[in-house]
Amino acid sequence: MDKKTKVNAAILIIGNEILSGRTQDTNTSTLAIWLNSIGVKVNEVRIVPDVEKIIVNTLNTLRKINDYVFTTGGIGPTHDDITAQSVSKAFNIKYEIHKEAYKILENYYKPGEFNEGRQRMVWMPENAELILNPTSGAPGFSIQNVFCLPGVPSILKSMLGGLKNKIVGGQPILSYTISLRTVESEIADSLSKVQDQNKDVEIGSYPFFHAGKLGVSIVLRAENQSKINDCSYQILQFVNKKKIEIVDR
Amino acid sequence: MDKKTKVNAAILIIGNEILSGRTQDTNTSTLAIWLNSIGVKVNEVRIVPDVEKIIVNTLNTLRKINDYVFTTGGIGPTHDDITAQSVSKAFNIKYEIHKEAYKILENYYKPGEFNEGRQRMVWMPENAELILNPTSGAPGFSIQNVFCLPGVPSILKSMLGGLKNKIVGGQPILSYTISLRTVESEIADSLSKVQDQNKDVEIGSYPFFHAGKLGVSIVLRAENQSKINDCSYQILQFVNKKKIEIVDR
Repeated sequence: MDKKTKVNAAILIIGNEILSGRTQDTNTSTLAIWLNSIGVKVNEVRIVPDVEKIIVNTLNTLRKINDYVFTTGGIGPTHDDITAQSVSKAFNIKYEIHKEAYKILENYYKPGEFNEGRQRMVWMPENAELILNPTSGAPGFSIQNVFCLPGVPSILKSMLGGLKNKIVGGQPILSYTISLRTVESEIADSLSKVQDQNKDVEIGSYPFFHAGKLGVSIVLRAENQSKINDCSYQILQFVNKKKIEIVDR
Repeated sequence: MDKKTKVNAAILIIGNEILSGRTQDTNTSTLAIWLNSIGVKVNEVRIVPDVEKIIVNTLNTLRKINDYVFTTGGIGPTHDDITAQSVSKAFNIKYEIHKEAYKILENYYKPGEFNEGRQRMVWMPENAELILNPTSGAPGFSIQNVFCLPGVPSILKSMLGGLKNKIVGGQPILSYTISLRTVESEIADSLSKVQDQNKDVEIGSYPFFHAGKLGVSIVLRAENQSKINDCSYQILQFVNKKKIEIVDR
């Protein structure tokens, strides 16, 4: 993919345990922060159950309208791990044993321990590229613009380093936060005016409650530092005028 | 809505701060656990940015294919809070001052404090039903099968009690967990056979790492306790046969 200014991605979280509320997803935040740092903006996230038809349809929607799609979950050895077969179906690509992945796991496990269950983890779409797993052996994989990662957060994190060269990002998205001792309604009008005058800066307003005190964090996000500077200058002007205490910036 | 066996919902998380990774969503888990307890299964979750067109389109998709849709976020007083106006547009319903909500906030704030910013929070789709907010005054609202809740987790939690009578669930979804001192690949084949023989039970397998030791939690989910019992009996049979330690059940 050629270098371009705006590069976007979708995240597809696969797993009944997230939809049931049993497990709190943390991979969205991990992936989004990492992707921002390499200039990829997350456009949307979808969480779907371990149902092949749903995974196939959702993936086929997302991969066509985003530069990249990152899936998490469903690449382990048990019956509910159906990501690799679903991705194969979505692309209409043969689902088969990946020879390199087989070798990696054959070496990873002690003799005799590379059993039938573990061998399920080397079935992938034909010609998938591996994403190496420094934590627990079993690799993820990518095919075209779709990158399949595991659901276990610590393992996912350990695999991002190996992914970096495969993703071509745009301008990194910069952000700047101003935290104020105020409530949102006190600054809503002034902030809205600043937003109107700074269309290229995404201004978010987030109330917080910390150490028994209320406050608001204003988050400025843009690809251009000078635009963030201009915008924050305008915010600080009305903050001073209103005599609002700045907690942090 | 008549009582029926299967009742499902989608969750629509609205907010740039979730997509940027700045804020970790926890409302999905809170809502999903609460919905399961009243017999509503979460089919899918989507996280979208604070962009009206995207909110409108996504909501119109979700509300037609799910019994209920719960939105979180975007109902505060600042410029990036656009959920109420987007919902009005999605339903093609007038966006106007909600008189009851106006009275609630007029009473809630001290004289003179119900300022322009705060007054933004009483704009809603015409004839919206209020969802009372015992924490911070500003109500959420529902229109047809769509329920709009705030993004701040503690406030959202405090509003669920007032929602209960408005949601008609089906059979509550029961779950039972068996935690084993093993690895997934050891039990994958046996578990797969049990799943094949128990189609009405959703069997999930989740590796865990606790106090320095690896294990696997098997989660059984169904609407029928006797089906869970049959299934767990079959699991315990192969667990005993394989001499796997049971950590918890």
